[in-house]
Amino acid sequence: MIAAMVTAYPVVLTHRRPKPPCRSVVCVGLGAMGEGIARLLRERGAYRIVAAVDPNPHPGVEDVLVHDGVKLVSSISEVPAQRADVCVICTESGIDRVLPTIHWALERRMNVITTAEEGLPYPWTAYRGEAEALDELARRNRVTVLSTGINPGFAMDVLPILLTAACRRVRRIDVHRANDLSSFGASVMRSFGIGLPPDEFDDAVRAGTVVGHTGFVESISMIAAATGLEVDEIRRELSPIIATNARVAPHATAPPGTVAGCNDVAEGLRAGEVVIRLEHPQQIDPAAEDVRTVDRICVDGDPSLTVVIEPEIPGGAGTIAVIANMIPALIDAPAGLATMDRLRLPAGVFA
Amino acid sequence: MIAAMVTAYPVVLTHRRPKPPCRSVVCVGLGAMGEGIARLLRERGAYRIVAAVDPNPHPGVEDVLVHDGVKLVSSISEVPAQRADVCVICTESGIDRVLPTIHWALERRMNVITTAEEGLPYPWTAYRGEAEALDELARRNRVTVLSTGINPGFAMDVLPILLTAACRRVRRIDVHRANDLSSFGASVMRSFGIGLPPDEFDDAVRAGTVVGHTGFVESISMIAAATGLEVDEIRRELSPIIATNARVAPHATAPPGTVAGCNDVAEGLRAGEVVIRLEHPQQIDPAAEDVRTVDRICVDGDPSLTVVIEPEIPGGAGTIAVIANMIPALIDAPAGLATMDRLRLPAGVFA
Repeated sequence: MIAAMVTAYPVVLTHRRPKPPCRSVVCVGLGAMGEGIARLLRERGAYRIVAAVDPNPHPGVEDVLVHDGVKLVSSISEVPAQRADVCVICTESGIDRVLPTIHWALERRMNVITTAEEGLPYPWTAYRGEAEALDELARRNRVTVLSTGINPGFAMDVLPILLTAACRRVRRIDVHRANDLSSFGASVMRSFGIGLPPDEFDDAVRAGTVVGHTGFVESISMIAAATGLEVDEIRRELSPIIATNARVAPHATAPPGTVAGCNDVAEGLRAGEVVIRLEHPQQIDPAAEDVRTVDRICVDGDPSLTVVIEPEIPGGAGTIAVIANMIPALIDAPAGLATMDRLRLPAGVFA
Repeated sequence: MIAAMVTAYPVVLTHRRPKPPCRSVVCVGLGAMGEGIARLLRERGAYRIVAAVDPNPHPGVEDVLVHDGVKLVSSISEVPAQRADVCVICTESGIDRVLPTIHWALERRMNVITTAEEGLPYPWTAYRGEAEALDELARRNRVTVLSTGINPGFAMDVLPILLTAACRRVRRIDVHRANDLSSFGASVMRSFGIGLPPDEFDDAVRAGTVVGHTGFVESISMIAAATGLEVDEIRRELSPIIATNARVAPHATAPPGTVAGCNDVAEGLRAGEVVIRLEHPQQIDPAAEDVRTVDRICVDGDPSLTVVIEPEIPGGAGTIAVIANMIPALIDAPAGLATMDRLRLPAGVFA
């Protein structure tokens, strides 16, 4: 018989936190992400949705809002001139297309959190002019603006950055994120070229209709700035994943020989040497060819670390969670343009 | 032939950070951790060690310091009355034994970072009185105090907290950290009872000579506070790992049938149900019985996440790195008692 020592700690855990104040929220964009965030905020009880904007809401979206008696309007110009604590913007990926909505919210002194992937998650290098203007506008209105989500915002930047804190030295960071695109809608299927014959893939990339992942420059820039692993060049290679077996998803199919997804690689180099490599194959129905979906991070350093998350952190649910969970840190942050690496440790908020 | 699209981003990455200011450091305690931290800070160039304290320095420690012409003294009372930016304290684990040194440093207006495991990494629940006094003293002197390391401070608290940011809901968190004690010294061997016959293990635990891991209450309290997964009870079970094959390490051996380490489990419960479970087997020579060393984190939630780091994040190198890497965040933080969950995202500092 093996000895065992059981200790009941003489610990009185009286740290029950004060109930957080109820925050008012304006939701702009009620697609899959925007609706998911609105539902989660409502569930948590600490948020009150005071206005919602979507020009083409799908049926059922009103359910998210009706308990507050909030009317869904089709444009921000119809939102009553009422301040709110936070504006959640889930409309466009492109920085030029989302900036007018962000400006509108900042000028109304609302803190802004957005899923917009291009530039905003770490704009200080590739979009420095926009970053400075946004920072200035947010400071003038004494509010904070943040773009985040699972990727960019977590899986390929925040998580590897955190791991480097356990390293005395780092030579290189490799991140591999293989995920399943099946659950996404028709516009995502088009932007990955799902079902195209291989010879049409290049044309579609050149035409800008197939774009693959948005967020590599943002993630590499954030890692470089947070850790000092600076890069002077970013390279990217986007290639098609060709189906061997038939692939099937709700909004697209890929017969054998056609495009089932994109293998997307970006490298950050310093003096010609790769110091950060992000590899992000995304495809429909990966199980049809026994492709494992996984997040894998390898930090080559002292010590070296290998982290495997299998299956991968799901993109949709994860983005909804990250946005909702970052709102308290956003509200507490100093005024200006925030990035994930400078805010307090991200954490789920389940109180 | 598969099509491929290579893009060289038109990105000018001019975000070369300004060289950080050189910080002055007082090092108190130059054992394995203290010496490793001093060496790393010297290597990084952005630190100047202005005083060092150790009553029993081992040969070679002077090498760490001699370049600065700093004299090693045996007690803090011999340190010149000179302010420094940071005081690194690596002396004792116990809160009562380390507090006088922390008070000394805070009263001299030095920011303090320490490896002391007991209480300080998250003292707001189990050591509330000490926490409030320390916070007050640090604020009055306009400096910040932080206790951290790999565990507590990273592997079993900060990392699981970060993962919950990707979850809409969390029911329970399980962390398993199996590590190799072989590299530690004689005092660690004694505190885990290495080589004891099983019937002496219970007596040694009762006598307080075998203590196992220090940090469970701290990690559970930090997770609970950061995420709102509150607990009203913490239970702990410490049992011996009995060697089947002979185990050998530099400072101890465990013949078959004797104690090769401790299996150490702590559970945080709410209304009788486990919501946080930390399992931490630590032993010498795990390879002798094909025991895998690993960090494994399972978040049961929406989504659920399983993270595996194999081999485990090494305790010694990792603690040295975390302490050195947190100094810039410590200096930038508001005055008072800091905890890892409230500081900015930890990151390696390799500029």
